[in-house]
Amino acid sequence: MFKINENYLKLPGSYLFSTIGKKVAAFTEANPDKPIIRLGIGDVTQPLAPAIIQALHSAVDEMGRAETFHGYAPDLGYSFLRETIAREDYEAKGCQIGADEIFVSDGAKSDSANIQEIFSNDCKIAVCDPVYPVYVDSNVMAGRTGTYDPKTEMWSDVIYMPCTKDNDFVPELPKETPDLIYLCYPNNPTGSALTKEQLQVWVDYANKNGSVIIYDAAYEAYISQENVPHSIYECPGARTCAIELRSFSKNAGFTGTRLGFTVIPKELMCGEVSLHSLWARRHGTKYNGAPYIIQKAGEAVYSAEGKAQLKEQVAYYMKNASVIYQGLKDAGYDVSGGINAPYIWMQTPKGMGSWEFFDYLLEKANVVGTPGAGFGPSGEGCFRLTAFGTYENTVAAMERIKQL
Amino acid sequence: MFKINENYLKLPGSYLFSTIGKKVAAFTEANPDKPIIRLGIGDVTQPLAPAIIQALHSAVDEMGRAETFHGYAPDLGYSFLRETIAREDYEAKGCQIGADEIFVSDGAKSDSANIQEIFSNDCKIAVCDPVYPVYVDSNVMAGRTGTYDPKTEMWSDVIYMPCTKDNDFVPELPKETPDLIYLCYPNNPTGSALTKEQLQVWVDYANKNGSVIIYDAAYEAYISQENVPHSIYECPGARTCAIELRSFSKNAGFTGTRLGFTVIPKELMCGEVSLHSLWARRHGTKYNGAPYIIQKAGEAVYSAEGKAQLKEQVAYYMKNASVIYQGLKDAGYDVSGGINAPYIWMQTPKGMGSWEFFDYLLEKANVVGTPGAGFGPSGEGCFRLTAFGTYENTVAAMERIKQL
Repeated sequence: MFKINENYLKLPGSYLFSTIGKKVAAFTEANPDKPIIRLGIGDVTQPLAPAIIQALHSAVDEMGRAETFHGYAPDLGYSFLRETIAREDYEAKGCQIGADEIFVSDGAKSDSANIQEIFSNDCKIAVCDPVYPVYVDSNVMAGRTGTYDPKTEMWSDVIYMPCTKDNDFVPELPKETPDLIYLCYPNNPTGSALTKEQLQVWVDYANKNGSVIIYDAAYEAYISQENVPHSIYECPGARTCAIELRSFSKNAGFTGTRLGFTVIPKELMCGEVSLHSLWARRHGTKYNGAPYIIQKAGEAVYSAEGKAQLKEQVAYYMKNASVIYQGLKDAGYDVSGGINAPYIWMQTPKGMGSWEFFDYLLEKANVVGTPGAGFGPSGEGCFRLTAFGTYENTVAAMERIKQL
Repeated sequence: MFKINENYLKLPGSYLFSTIGKKVAAFTEANPDKPIIRLGIGDVTQPLAPAIIQALHSAVDEMGRAETFHGYAPDLGYSFLRETIAREDYEAKGCQIGADEIFVSDGAKSDSANIQEIFSNDCKIAVCDPVYPVYVDSNVMAGRTGTYDPKTEMWSDVIYMPCTKDNDFVPELPKETPDLIYLCYPNNPTGSALTKEQLQVWVDYANKNGSVIIYDAAYEAYISQENVPHSIYECPGARTCAIELRSFSKNAGFTGTRLGFTVIPKELMCGEVSLHSLWARRHGTKYNGAPYIIQKAGEAVYSAEGKAQLKEQVAYYMKNASVIYQGLKDAGYDVSGGINAPYIWMQTPKGMGSWEFFDYLLEKANVVGTPGAGFGPSGEGCFRLTAFGTYENTVAAMERIKQL
């Protein structure tokens, strides 16, 4: 008789955003007359920029003619896209990353869930707390996290690095040495950022201790301050210790279009074996490339028109971020984030848990946010709002919150 | 110091089609005046059908307007596509499969590589020999296959089921009971098919022995004979023992567009746990849905225009299949397949290994095929040609082969 992967059964409850979805659906059914404003899930609302739409139409036309039809894509991505990324995201920022170190994929969620596969099951992971749930859950499914304690909401074999108001949301170097360190900056969910000097500390630590940093830079387009690095490869030494994950979801609105990439420098070695070669083998065996038309859309993100249009789109969302930041402050809340990230992080009112505040906001203001506890134990007592709504809704949500 | 997944290092050599690619590139460089005809890799050559192109353009336009923009897709696929699949691929064929048992993905290669993840690492797999390499390789990477013997080219913990001319390419029930049985019919690479009665034997065997059949039906559109099932769910009992993988690559030319789906009936249980719930959890954690525009393209495959256009496309390729079948027969070869599948399988001339025949055909006729040995030890002495070229090239290739 066949057996299942028992690790899957260890995953507690359902995925955070499913729970929120169910709560909102129940409220809407009970209160059909109360229009909800959603600032919860990190999904975008602005349409794809005209330059991207044009590139998609043109690529679709190519697929309709035998002379320009595209079958199987190269597993690792088309050169036209990999070279554009290398030039625009790395060379232009002074980072030494070759086109052949870039692996195009269907998005950073898949990559951040799959990357653990190339490591031994003995590896110990460290995560910030609070954290994007996929890093931990994918390691649970691989059997790398030990046992779950429902009381502390922690896994026995995971190193948690609290990021709270007390340490200004900057994790401290862990006492026990991790093998894999997940860092996401600008940070989801806290909206905080690391300076180049703060990130350099981690690069040096990883090189010294033989750790690999898995650096999720999905929100780099939202960086507004000069001393905040857009890529970990801006830090000397990162080529021997860091993998970088990037997404087109938030800088270009590709949440429903699906495109991302992972960078693995060729110097990142475990003895004689390069992680680059392992990830290439995984792509070749388990993936068949991102669709041609989507890769052409990705290329348009970097055209002169694309860049100008997306700069406006990011500015639109960041205007929302500032509306939320200021609105919450005016309403008397303790707020952070929203300067280099599309997320605003707030402390819930004294004595109110983060799920309790979720219900309160939903019922009294009909506004949906995300309870900090959903991102990890240190998120308790905190709450996340996102800047990805429309401007009108964002302003209206703040008016409602101020009137509570 | 971090460690890698050592199982990756067990994979022998490079992926079959990379090796072929390199050989062809070397030949072309040495002989720039000799035009190559490629009937090797299973990539299609005909453009996307007009109904699909139209659906893509229209979905792209939706993505460009705020009112019709689509962000994150439902993890498991849009209802419009899942319901269409349930109706057209299953209900219409008398199979009882619900829309909520269909999981939309970026293609059958990913699904066939990822599906092993929901099973225990103790599970023993059985594969046909020769076989599509991804089934075995993905299990090697998970550490499920034991050790590799370079002499026999076999893994110690894999049950091989030879499919050769001697058994008319129909595997015999294995002596040792497998937990997971990979079956691909119509078959890649042999081009053979199972009748409904022959497939029923496997369904009954799996139910009796507590095995799960992973049924890859990527080539079902090429079935021309009445008694050959298009889905394993045409066999009574399959709902409690079979997972079916389907692709849009070959019936609709989506090799570079990427869309597929996996069916897991809710009755497929391991004790109290449904495999359906495990795969749903995997999708939710490690995948973010197929792009909206691609799912709209998938829907168009089932429209009246789409169906008519794709019927012609399949007929075009099957005309090639018959040209190859007849051409090889006329040239004196022992040939099979090509009736219910786009693959033609031939015995290499006496005393000639399949890689040797590959080199011979490349050098003498400038035609690229795939050596049977690349699909497993029982493929030695055989050779695969595909019907996915253009008609003109296919005819030209046969003329060249006949003149050898």
